[in-house]
Amino acid sequence: MEKGKYGFFDPVSQEYVITVPQTPTPWINYLGDGVYGGIISNTGGGYSFDRDPRFKRVLRYRYNSIPEDQPGRYIYLKDTETGSAWSATWQPVKAGYDLYECRHGMGYTSIRLEKDCIAASTDYFVPLGRKMEIWRLKLHNRSNRRRFITLFSYAEFCFFDAAKDQQNVDWVQQIGQGEFEDGFIFWNAFMKTWDYTFMTCDRPPHSFETVRDSFVGRYRDLSNPVAVDNGVCSNSIAHRGNGAGVLCHQLELSPGSTEEVIYILGVTPTKDAIKTEIKKLLHPEEVNQLFQGLKNYWQNYLRSIQVTTPDPELNLMLNTWNPYQCKITFNWSRFVSLYQLGIDRGMGLRDSAQDILGVLQAIPEQARELLVKLFQCQFEDGHAYHLFYPLTGEGSMGEAQGGMYNWYSDDHLWLIEATMAYLKETGDFGFLDQKITFAESDQQGTVWEHLIKAINFTATHLGEHQLPLNGFADWNDALNLDRGKGRAESVWTGMLFCRVLVQMTELATYLNQLEIAHTMNQIHTATKNAINDYAWDGHWYLQAFDDEGKKVGSHSSETEEQIYLNPQSWSVLSGVATPERAETAIKKAVDLLGTEFGLVLLYPAYKGYRNDRGGVTTYPPGAKENAGIFVHTNPWFIIAQLLIGHNEAGYHNYRNILPVLKNNIPDRHEVEPYVYCQNILGKEHPQFGLGRNSWLTGTAAWAYIAGTQYILGIRPQFDGLLIEPHVPAAWQEFKVKRYFRGRELDISFHRNRTEPTSNFSIQVLVNGVSIDSAGFIPLELLEPDQKHFIEILLEDKEKAVS
Amino acid sequence: MEKGKYGFFDPVSQEYVITVPQTPTPWINYLGDGVYGGIISNTGGGYSFDRDPRFKRVLRYRYNSIPEDQPGRYIYLKDTETGSAWSATWQPVKAGYDLYECRHGMGYTSIRLEKDCIAASTDYFVPLGRKMEIWRLKLHNRSNRRRFITLFSYAEFCFFDAAKDQQNVDWVQQIGQGEFEDGFIFWNAFMKTWDYTFMTCDRPPHSFETVRDSFVGRYRDLSNPVAVDNGVCSNSIAHRGNGAGVLCHQLELSPGSTEEVIYILGVTPTKDAIKTEIKKLLHPEEVNQLFQGLKNYWQNYLRSIQVTTPDPELNLMLNTWNPYQCKITFNWSRFVSLYQLGIDRGMGLRDSAQDILGVLQAIPEQARELLVKLFQCQFEDGHAYHLFYPLTGEGSMGEAQGGMYNWYSDDHLWLIEATMAYLKETGDFGFLDQKITFAESDQQGTVWEHLIKAINFTATHLGEHQLPLNGFADWNDALNLDRGKGRAESVWTGMLFCRVLVQMTELATYLNQLEIAHTMNQIHTATKNAINDYAWDGHWYLQAFDDEGKKVGSHSSETEEQIYLNPQSWSVLSGVATPERAETAIKKAVDLLGTEFGLVLLYPAYKGYRNDRGGVTTYPPGAKENAGIFVHTNPWFIIAQLLIGHNEAGYHNYRNILPVLKNNIPDRHEVEPYVYCQNILGKEHPQFGLGRNSWLTGTAAWAYIAGTQYILGIRPQFDGLLIEPHVPAAWQEFKVKRYFRGRELDISFHRNRTEPTSNFSIQVLVNGVSIDSAGFIPLELLEPDQKHFIEILLEDKEKAVS
Repeated sequence: MEKGKYGFFDPVSQEYVITVPQTPTPWINYLGDGVYGGIISNTGGGYSFDRDPRFKRVLRYRYNSIPEDQPGRYIYLKDTETGSAWSATWQPVKAGYDLYECRHGMGYTSIRLEKDCIAASTDYFVPLGRKMEIWRLKLHNRSNRRRFITLFSYAEFCFFDAAKDQQNVDWVQQIGQGEFEDGFIFWNAFMKTWDYTFMTCDRPPHSFETVRDSFVGRYRDLSNPVAVDNGVCSNSIAHRGNGAGVLCHQLELSPGSTEEVIYILGVTPTKDAIKTEIKKLLHPEEVNQLFQGLKNYWQNYLRSIQVTTPDPELNLMLNTWNPYQCKITFNWSRFVSLYQLGIDRGMGLRDSAQDILGVLQAIPEQARELLVKLFQCQFEDGHAYHLFYPLTGEGSMGEAQGGMYNWYSDDHLWLIEATMAYLKETGDFGFLDQKITFAESDQQGTVWEHLIKAINFTATHLGEHQLPLNGFADWNDALNLDRGKGRAESVWTGMLFCRVLVQMTELATYLNQLEIAHTMNQIHTATKNAINDYAWDGHWYLQAFDDEGKKVGSHSSETEEQIYLNPQSWSVLSGVATPERAETAIKKAVDLLGTEFGLVLLYPAYKGYRNDRGGVTTYPPGAKENAGIFVHTNPWFIIAQLLIGHNEAGYHNYRNILPVLKNNIPDRHEVEPYVYCQNILGKEHPQFGLGRNSWLTGTAAWAYIAGTQYILGIRPQFDGLLIEPHVPAAWQEFKVKRYFRGRELDISFHRNRTEPTSNFSIQVLVNGVSIDSAGFIPLELLEPDQKHFIEILLEDKEKAVS
Repeated sequence: MEKGKYGFFDPVSQEYVITVPQTPTPWINYLGDGVYGGIISNTGGGYSFDRDPRFKRVLRYRYNSIPEDQPGRYIYLKDTETGSAWSATWQPVKAGYDLYECRHGMGYTSIRLEKDCIAASTDYFVPLGRKMEIWRLKLHNRSNRRRFITLFSYAEFCFFDAAKDQQNVDWVQQIGQGEFEDGFIFWNAFMKTWDYTFMTCDRPPHSFETVRDSFVGRYRDLSNPVAVDNGVCSNSIAHRGNGAGVLCHQLELSPGSTEEVIYILGVTPTKDAIKTEIKKLLHPEEVNQLFQGLKNYWQNYLRSIQVTTPDPELNLMLNTWNPYQCKITFNWSRFVSLYQLGIDRGMGLRDSAQDILGVLQAIPEQARELLVKLFQCQFEDGHAYHLFYPLTGEGSMGEAQGGMYNWYSDDHLWLIEATMAYLKETGDFGFLDQKITFAESDQQGTVWEHLIKAINFTATHLGEHQLPLNGFADWNDALNLDRGKGRAESVWTGMLFCRVLVQMTELATYLNQLEIAHTMNQIHTATKNAINDYAWDGHWYLQAFDDEGKKVGSHSSETEEQIYLNPQSWSVLSGVATPERAETAIKKAVDLLGTEFGLVLLYPAYKGYRNDRGGVTTYPPGAKENAGIFVHTNPWFIIAQLLIGHNEAGYHNYRNILPVLKNNIPDRHEVEPYVYCQNILGKEHPQFGLGRNSWLTGTAAWAYIAGTQYILGIRPQFDGLLIEPHVPAAWQEFKVKRYFRGRELDISFHRNRTEPTSNFSIQVLVNGVSIDSAGFIPLELLEPDQKHFIEILLEDKEKAVS
């Protein structure tokens, strides 16, 4: 892979390496693994929190501010002899440098900056299972003379309630209290109703500040703090106002020597507890072990699926960045990023349900835990909260609150999709018997009952075309059709409904619940027929019927919304479309919606605000839901293409959305090239190609599924593994190492001829023995806790026949 | 008056003049008069909005940010020859200068900055009745050579919903749209559901930016924008992202010449409407007239009371800054300041009711309009919202929401106090018949009925000592006694109740509603007796009974809350205390609560969080309600002192809280020396003397009343004017010009002896004729629409008797 203008992939270290600090947007990484942690940019910007970014915030961050991407986890360096000062992460001083390099790795970020023969390298990471972060600074004197460097750490403390911190400066500015004790800075509110924030270092400081504004100085900013100017801190104790963790150290470095300085920042219930804990921990070897432990953790996470294919970019994504991103989305849903402030929305129910799909192969137990939390968001009537806060469990209907239908038509159905995927990956059918309390109720139901209630809710909330009512919205949050009549129906939700009904039927059959299987199948047939009877528009499927009963997403529309993407993809994913209709719809979608960066969500875009369409029309043409490339929906389409045998086209579209390929157009795309983003401005927007909302997007899970389960085609089933590759015809071979229900599988694919074709038959060998099952490997063929070799041979059909 | 470290008062121009830009906090002023406007600091920082800072925001402001006090209304200057750049208001470039001066006047701010022989002077004001602000820049070339100066305006546009602007960057960053048309920059959201923001200039720009980040540049800040570096703008059109109003002009100034450049920023429903309006307006003479019109407006406002006394600081406050601050608090309650973000709370009901008291003499019609809005916040059962939004009328119970008692015990009673003051000032008894709809109801009631319902609510919500239940809190928002038993009672609310009952009795009597007068009197007697029976603590009055029925503010408390200030003041204001008790209580309050900056709210402070006291104990000792100097309560105490004849002590305390005297200790006090602040850290706080929450405080109205109605002693009654001065004995004479119900009164006071004494009798002459009424002048003696001369002669009592 080529080096980009701002950086490159290092496949050996599994890091993305940023070589220029002025990235078009801050290019971030995540520290921690769902408990203590936060975000960190390539110049040290970002913030931390303990489990909940809203109610247990540790560090402040100023979104969309000037200067951008501040504050962060900063270390200032000052050459005492020359008076020159800079930052170990470039920001916030932004001084000239001789070398800059940021390496975002799995769960850590390391930033190097060399200036005037002083090489600083800072590793940032959260040790596993601890409520703290380590900043490990290594300072190396490359010069041939003794150097005197003064260091200042800077962490800007936040009130634990991050929303109040920002919105009630009157109160919050009166109650903050800083302390300095035994080398620790402590920060808390006067009433001490929450944990302390602490900051310390492996050596006693020369001086310190706990008052932010004493460090910065009046009318200055973080690029030239008065304390750095003075070369010393004032030992300020905060009795009110803003707090900061500033520890000042004066170092002497002999020529060629290296000094390691370890800062630790975190939260603690008591001052004594952390003093004891830190005493044991603050040794370079100990810290090194913690760092290594973290790296091992991530290697272990990633090993569940590792692939070797002819496509290095696909390999890079599927082996490293895509599953890593899946875990981050699993941790934070759409809550904490450069675009979601960790304040306003909490976790999304449908989001988390889909995020689960991307981590099942590695951490099924954690997935089950989250699933339980999601089921706790489901009401007795079957529908579910749209959002919830992870720490308190408090749920809400999000924007649907107060609408005529204060629910989304799809939230509860995703619980089924996620549960099915969980069962297929794990075979843990006992989960179906687990009792879980309903939302705002003291009643419990088994998971199975929760699933049935989800089906029932939709089955009893149908509109005049026997399609699910749209509610406040379907997956397309912004398409708000309800205008008080309660008529609007979602074709797409009908398709999702069909998809989960198929799976419920399968599961009920598998569990020998034949009556339920029959009922599920009946509902499925009725819904499928309704869709085909009413929602086929001649060349594609409609998206919905609006509150007047009019078609949404029809060729009969004059200038707007003639076609929506999702119903085309889902007509296949749900099995609703006949082969002919699928072929036509998918082809039309490519023609009308396709771009070099993925398919747009609809076409043509809405040209102005429409009350009968709602939120989608608040966006300008080409942005977000209004005909932007909503990347999340592209893997759905890709899967649909593959499922109907459009392998080359599906692979082409898969590559179109690969973040790694954006490494060549960073100033156009702007966001990180190592993770998927939620949206890219579409072809009708003047800034076509600009990405936003990187990291937290359902794209991660679905692109991972598209890659592993559909392109490579290794797909768990209730009772085994289906092998059904849809790789491009040019591929001669690929290998996949995969763990499945405790078995280690070594899967190798081979094509028996050189000329590309997609007209092939499949032959599967398990441990050298050919099985005759059209690619399906029953679980009983795979002995538990063993390694198995699976060979897949694709043969040209004619040749095979001959 | 001496010049302070940062500035001085110019009594001639009625301006406060700031001579050093680095004030300890931004020292601000308000532009506009309750419609379009906002705040502006001494270095140009601040923001604008149209009526409602939450839902019709125009400009952004970053509270508690680094760098502080940005953005604002900026003009950059760049010397094209030298490349040197600076700002006309010092911020945000913060370059060195030869002269800096900010003049905060009545409704306008003018900032001068001279550098390199270029003198820039910018006047900021909102023309009366227009939804726009004018920035009038005068550039003078003091050098003897031709100069080439490039100008860049900078206004950072906000999404109209200021909370969403900050909290939903995902959406807001996708929908902003900039346009440039006929010299105008327009800004709106794509859906155009709100007015346009516009920015224009009296001459076509050389170039422009509508994209904020194109102006600033990547990883730069407002101190060194890339466009200023380049000396030219890029004519960016915002299709998304952040918007700004940047107009670039290249000027050529001959030696000694002056150029006037006029920028206009505001809101408009249509682009055409504003083009037409501006075309008529954009001439220097026209702009000058608008500026003069504004100045005349304020002179007219101020003339309703003008005093001449031996105390220049008192004169300065009562003639200019105090009534000016009263109008600002009347406009914005506690909604828009450096401490209230214009987002979170709206207007306060009790706050606005008290703010009305400070403007009645000048704008009774506007006061009546606001009173009507407040009555619309009253429920049919008599209690009232705690907060409301001025634009939508939407009300809320504030923090009381969800408590056991979701109301404050005093809100509705302030409606009575305000109405009484309105009637006394205006004689507009017809107001009592006006019908006003109740909150969340379609029922109407006359004002009189509203008042009776307010009385009834309290009369029917009494506790076990027959005192008003405390509800969520009384005036002391932070004293939250309710812990689920519903027992807590407020002695203080009992006193407020008595005070309004006395006035209701007087009014009913005056209106010949004798039965009601009798009832009011009965309730009053019962409450008064209850207070004296249960709430006298031996040397002072209790503040409350808590939810266990235990005393709050009693000498029997061990280390905390032995005495609260308010019940002592209000024992006099309400007429509850016997003279002996009043004497003792007031004396004890001085002893235990008095400081050089005013009396603290309670003593000793709470030393840690107490669940049975609530919010007050979230503050550290000495801060805000926890034994801070809550300045608002000081005029109450002063009035009480004066009412029991402690004239010298009352005057002494009045001077203690005078902002103007803080001009000598700006680094300790930090906030503006020309307006009252809400709180000063108390004697138990390490930062004793530090002020916060300047401008928006009930202190303004009550200090004005203390000064004009109690020290100078000219007090409107239902049927005339009471003259009852409580001036210090050393004063030989003073004069007051006052308008009262259409009459112009020229009041002069004279003391007939030189030796100070407070043992005097009063003699009043109206137009030269002595009246025998112990200082009361019946209205019938004052012919309407005429000027009257009133002389007050104070005579030594013994001498008078002799």
